[in-house]
Amino acid sequence: MTGETSAIEAHRSSLRAMLGEDLVLTGIEEIARYCRDWHGDVSSSAVAVVRPRSTADVVAAVKACRELGLSIVPQGGNTGLALGATPDAPEREVVITLERMNRIRTIDPDDFSAVVEAGCILSELKDAIAEKGMFFPLALGAQGSCRIGGNVSTNAGGINVLRYGMTRELVLGLEVVLADGSLFEGLSTLRKDNRGIDLKQLFIGAEGTLGIITAVSVKLSPYPDNVATALLGLASLDDAISLFRRARRDCCDLMSAFEFMPPLAFTLAREAMPDLPIPISGDYPAYVLMEISGSGLVDVDDLMGRFLEGVMTDGLVVDGTIASSQTQARNLWLIREGMNEGQAKRGSHMRSDVSVPLSRLAAFVAEAEEAIGKALPNCISVSYGHVGDGNVHLNVLPPNDMTGKARTDIIYAAKNALNEVVDRYNGSISAEHGIGRLKRPDFESRLPETHRKLLTAVKTAIDPNLLLNPGCQLNLSAIS
Amino acid sequence: MTGETSAIEAHRSSLRAMLGEDLVLTGIEEIARYCRDWHGDVSSSAVAVVRPRSTADVVAAVKACRELGLSIVPQGGNTGLALGATPDAPEREVVITLERMNRIRTIDPDDFSAVVEAGCILSELKDAIAEKGMFFPLALGAQGSCRIGGNVSTNAGGINVLRYGMTRELVLGLEVVLADGSLFEGLSTLRKDNRGIDLKQLFIGAEGTLGIITAVSVKLSPYPDNVATALLGLASLDDAISLFRRARRDCCDLMSAFEFMPPLAFTLAREAMPDLPIPISGDYPAYVLMEISGSGLVDVDDLMGRFLEGVMTDGLVVDGTIASSQTQARNLWLIREGMNEGQAKRGSHMRSDVSVPLSRLAAFVAEAEEAIGKALPNCISVSYGHVGDGNVHLNVLPPNDMTGKARTDIIYAAKNALNEVVDRYNGSISAEHGIGRLKRPDFESRLPETHRKLLTAVKTAIDPNLLLNPGCQLNLSAIS
Repeated sequence: MTGETSAIEAHRSSLRAMLGEDLVLTGIEEIARYCRDWHGDVSSSAVAVVRPRSTADVVAAVKACRELGLSIVPQGGNTGLALGATPDAPEREVVITLERMNRIRTIDPDDFSAVVEAGCILSELKDAIAEKGMFFPLALGAQGSCRIGGNVSTNAGGINVLRYGMTRELVLGLEVVLADGSLFEGLSTLRKDNRGIDLKQLFIGAEGTLGIITAVSVKLSPYPDNVATALLGLASLDDAISLFRRARRDCCDLMSAFEFMPPLAFTLAREAMPDLPIPISGDYPAYVLMEISGSGLVDVDDLMGRFLEGVMTDGLVVDGTIASSQTQARNLWLIREGMNEGQAKRGSHMRSDVSVPLSRLAAFVAEAEEAIGKALPNCISVSYGHVGDGNVHLNVLPPNDMTGKARTDIIYAAKNALNEVVDRYNGSISAEHGIGRLKRPDFESRLPETHRKLLTAVKTAIDPNLLLNPGCQLNLSAIS
Repeated sequence: MTGETSAIEAHRSSLRAMLGEDLVLTGIEEIARYCRDWHGDVSSSAVAVVRPRSTADVVAAVKACRELGLSIVPQGGNTGLALGATPDAPEREVVITLERMNRIRTIDPDDFSAVVEAGCILSELKDAIAEKGMFFPLALGAQGSCRIGGNVSTNAGGINVLRYGMTRELVLGLEVVLADGSLFEGLSTLRKDNRGIDLKQLFIGAEGTLGIITAVSVKLSPYPDNVATALLGLASLDDAISLFRRARRDCCDLMSAFEFMPPLAFTLAREAMPDLPIPISGDYPAYVLMEISGSGLVDVDDLMGRFLEGVMTDGLVVDGTIASSQTQARNLWLIREGMNEGQAKRGSHMRSDVSVPLSRLAAFVAEAEEAIGKALPNCISVSYGHVGDGNVHLNVLPPNDMTGKARTDIIYAAKNALNEVVDRYNGSISAEHGIGRLKRPDFESRLPETHRKLLTAVKTAIDPNLLLNPGCQLNLSAIS
């Protein structure tokens, strides 16, 4: 046994002694899935994985790690794709997973609010809320696996942001365990509360670097019983932007999704789901998947019908299909999901999550695809995303037969080519997934000095020993 | 000339020398209006008032104050009513007013965004945006005087929060001068940007204690051309809450205001505006002023008609009137404004701005009015506010003939009686106006230890010498 190994073993014994066997996992195999990112691209290990059942357990775990001089990597559903929730220093990091803290504390339709523990899976929360006639609008591909604490820690986005905002705008209150083991009790459900600086904002999007979120109170809306979904074929992405502007005015705040996709989406979707019905020709240069939704007295079918009649008469939309049942609507969304699965089937590729001012989205996509095409002529660009948020996922697929280092190199080159264009558009290299460890170098190299000073000041003021998620977002040294 | 006076005069000369005569006001009379709160209840003085014309001027002013060991009180329109923007240490404080920095830098309808300097008056910004067919939804009584930087610094609320959110939710980016004179350049218009901790959130609602906001980028909506406004008479405030719940579902996200008022509103409005038409009987126990609005293809008149038909059939609304013109709609809103002016005409009184969970609003108002009635039987309670936000302005009017200390004492007693009930409902003693210096004692006495520690850590990390707005929100001593 080397010195390092025996030190790790000593820490493991201490953790078991301090927290109890039930809370502490240390076997290499049993901790493996907590130490690997969602795609399985990156694997590491840890001193231990602690699985608290309560806020008090989290407090005890933080105090134990602090006492032993171990760092903490908080983890929710581990679906963030930015390496924000997985360890990278096996000899000194402990993963604290919130997966056992998955109780819904209250759902109060009269208060339009719910209070839920951090480890609750998003889709389970949404379903429980829907059963009470209410709606929690956060909607993203990973919702069957991601956990609400992670959604808050990464300020998750998704497809309904244009209407309901990012996770930040859905959070009413937080309960957070701080690095010194003290508890920030802020689980209010008040809609308006201007008692000084709003501390909870600090923890939203901090990716666990300032505290461990243990519970969340969220804002609910009435459940939108009526949903109209349409898939539209257009002459260009430029037209898709014009269509968005018009829809934003014509359909007002009732539009809940407006996604764009390239024609290649259908090919990719079919590769993943051969039987998926595709009720529109695949020959248009751009596609839009649009949703209008509402509850009560609002007739969204009528609104969608009148809207499409107008834009088709004006030639802004060339072809289109409206779902006439929930199944058909589900199938339209499956094209979008299938497109992603189809990309995964083609092997590892460059995934991105960038944003630009929404008025410049079409120009940005054209310029970025051209730059990547010039630099990497044998790759395929797939651009899709959320028009209303200026959020583009421009992915680059290397040739199918390219493997190993050649493939890794081309992915790296594609990312750099894209980010150069993002910089020219004053865009963001992370629109909705956060920085984590994956994007830290690209983040830090672009960070203005004043931002860095402020981020460092805030981090060291709240977590002076850099106990929490070190190496996530920033690479700092503890102040002594 | 005393030692103190000559020290102040020396500072004044230094400021003039460092910043130029044009930027520095020092005459007792010319600085008086900057040193007095909006109501004129509290007056003070200052070393000087600095009136920068540019961000560079603000940087220079901060550096000058820092060099001279003077503190800074940033000021916008000075309409916040919480003494957050007026000095209280005449011998060592300099007011920096943003009033000259009132340019609109850009309005971009295609990007649904605008960039504006902090000193722009809210109504001027709204009008300029409306001219481009767009809408900036922040709407409050002081909009003809308040300035956007102050709105952001206090996270202003107002009547449209239930649909569009607080100011925080309308801010896309900020430019801020920090206490060390460095510039935080964050004037992005991106809708989704998860590059690490969102620093701008710190400055929103900080009341100028962490930096001086010099410019803001904001989110715009399409202008709602179609507005339906109704004034409704109900059997109780309980029914008003039920009506809100139903309206939230039936009218979906198209409801833009839902205000409640007591029958006394009409008496008070008539005292201020004798000729104001009041198109409904004044005999119902509760009133609701409700607005639905939209643009494009959404028919809000039809929606309002069908909604009211349903709720009147069900007996939830007893009587009502729908405005049939913009003038009639304006007159309905004038009842609400007149109610406030009528209260002011009755002399100084206890004004409040509290919030409770919205499901408990009716119970809270009943209990609070009862508690005040018992403690102060000769006073009149006037409760009104924003149902959708759980935000109540419960004001207490002392007898007309009560003056001097007796009147001040009763106002103080009324505030304490109210806050006791707010505490029992886990409410907030400041829903939308902030803490300032006025509410600091009530804020600090209720502040949990963990909150205090975090607030202190953040403040001293960003402004270690407590240069900015000392005594606002918290009473701290500089770290040496």
